[in-house]
This record gives sequence, structure tokens and C-alpha cells, in this order.
Amino acid sequence: MKYTISLLVNNENTILTRLTNLFSRRGYILESFAIGPAESKDLCRLTLVVPGTKRSINQLMKQLYKLVGIIRVEDVTFVPCVERELLIAKLNATKKTRPEILEIANIFHAKVVDFTLESVILEVTGDPGKIVVVEKALNKFGIIELARTGKIALIRESYINTEILRYMK
Amino acid sequence: MKYTISLLVNNENTILTRLTNLFSRRGYILESFAIGPAESKDLCRLTLVVPGTKRSINQLMKQLYKLVGIIRVEDVTFVPCVERELLIAKLNATKKTRPEILEIANIFHAKVVDFTLESVILEVTGDPGKIVVVEKALNKFGIIELARTGKIALIRESYINTEILRYMK
Repeated sequence: MKYTISLLVNNENTILTRLTNLFSRRGYILESFAIGPAESKDLCRLTLVVPGTKRSINQLMKQLYKLVGIIRVEDVTFVPCVERELLIAKLNATKKTRPEILEIANIFHAKVVDFTLESVILEVTGDPGKIVVVEKALNKFGIIELARTGKIALIRESYINTEILRYMK
Repeated sequence: MKYTISLLVNNENTILTRLTNLFSRRGYILESFAIGPAESKDLCRLTLVVPGTKRSINQLMKQLYKLVGIIRVEDVTFVPCVERELLIAKLNATKKTRPEILEIANIFHAKVVDFTLESVILEVTGDPGKIVVVEKALNKFGIIELARTGKIALIRESYINTEILRYMK
């Protein structure tokens, strides 16, 4: 199964190298990887998606903690989180196909951010599930170029998500 | 100055390690780093922001081209691009401060994606300039946690941006 790990690290040049070396040395696969500034200037937050077993992920978390510059390591897989990704895609869009593209864009609250008579660039934000569905829907028009960020995640202060409601009495 | 480099690479496990090792070995700083799937399943697109001189960036591009698994390297710094980042931020928000937070959210088309009586999580997408302004505006309420992706970029098919209009006759 796939685990989501949230890391808070010092904003140092070498941290990325130390991290990727750990992953390749130990044979872990990074399915999604996002890094950016965190709540303080000297911190970065990383969100990783790593396939593994409970055992291998526990092992990984211990190894991460041992790295210099790591402040906090959290396995947020089973914690209610806001999870978001960003996608921009350049599509073929002619007079004939444009109406349907705009219809789909509208359904997913996607925005047209560039336009020519033969193409559009769409921007869309959502949880990883939505992003997969959008990409699938747009595929038929011909995706010329596509860029996606990795997933970022923050723990919901409300501590409630759909999954949890399902098991509540 | 800061250069934006767009990379198309094979979707291999080891590519990230090879890239970060190149950067640390040669002493380049990564100011922003985003990686995700590209238009084809076996490709990934990376967007990097690297401070440097024209000379040092040319050098870097040559070194990147030599890496195994790199398909395309483009310096898009002076090319009209759609540039987007994603930010989610958990803020203190009480009955007293909530109206102003919602007002600011509204201005920037930010969305409330989690809510308690003491906090909200906002989601906002935009070009790097907007993201900096939003973060500055929200700072006064107390940012509890924040996650940001790096910048992703696609070349505008229209080949027009504000900068270029300024120098057009």
C-alpha cells in the first residue's frame, strides 16, 4: 500500500541530496514528492508518497529521523488530511472541440490560463483522486504538454474526513 | 538572477538522486523544485529555479544534458510561460478575525478547505508573485502550518506575456 509521509526539515542546500541518497541506497521508491517553504523561513515541508509495508515504512521513518536537518517525521496515511495537487495541461483545442473542453473545465473548476485558436492551457487544483479523473477526461483531446506538482498535505484540525465518518457510530 | 529550467526526464527511480547529486557536487542552489508526471506515463517534468549567472546556468544545462535519463533541458527564464504554485495554510481564525480572513481569501480566490471554530485551512493557486503576496497578507493572523509546492511552468503557446507587450512596438 501507499504511505504518505510529511517531513519538516531545515532549509539547507544539502538536505535534498541527503534525502534522495537515503531513498536510493535503501531502495525506497518515491511515488510523489513535493517540497516547498513551510510556516517559517528556515523550514521546508516535504510530502512524500512511498509504497511499502507497515514494517518497511517504520524502518524508513527511523532512518529519516537519523538524518541531519530533519525536524519532524510524520506518517499521515491514516490521519485526516487536506491533500492537494496542482496540474497544468496544454491541450489541442479547436473551434470544434473547445466547447466540450470548456464544459469539462467547468465541471472541475479548472481555469483557462492561456489561449490560441488551436490550443488552451488549463489549470486545475484538487485532491489526487480528482487530478487523475481530470487527466483521464482531458486525454481524448490530445495533451500536448503537462506539468504536475507532487501532493502536499496538512492535517485537518477538524480531524474529520469522509473515511472516518464511515466508521463512526 | 534567478533562472527557471524545465526538464523532461525518464520516469526512473534513480533520476532524482542523480540530479540532486549533480547539484550538490557542483554547488548549485535549488530555490524551487517541483516534480511530477508529464504528458506520457514514462516521463516526468521537473521545474527548477536556480540562482546564477548566464555563464553558470549554461554550464549547468550542459551538465544536465550529460545525465542519463534526461530527455530535454530548457531554460524558460525569458520565454513566456504559465507559472503556477499551490499553497495550503492552516491559520488561527476566531469569530473576530474570520471575516477579514474570508475577505482576503475572496480577493485572491482562495478556498476554505477545512474549518474549526479556532482555525481554517486555505488553499490558493497562483503565479509565484501572487503566492508571496497572499502569504504576507495571511501572516498577521498567525500561520500554524503551511505547505507549498514548487513552481511548475509550461510555455505559453500564444508566446505572449505582459513583459513582452511592454517591449512591443
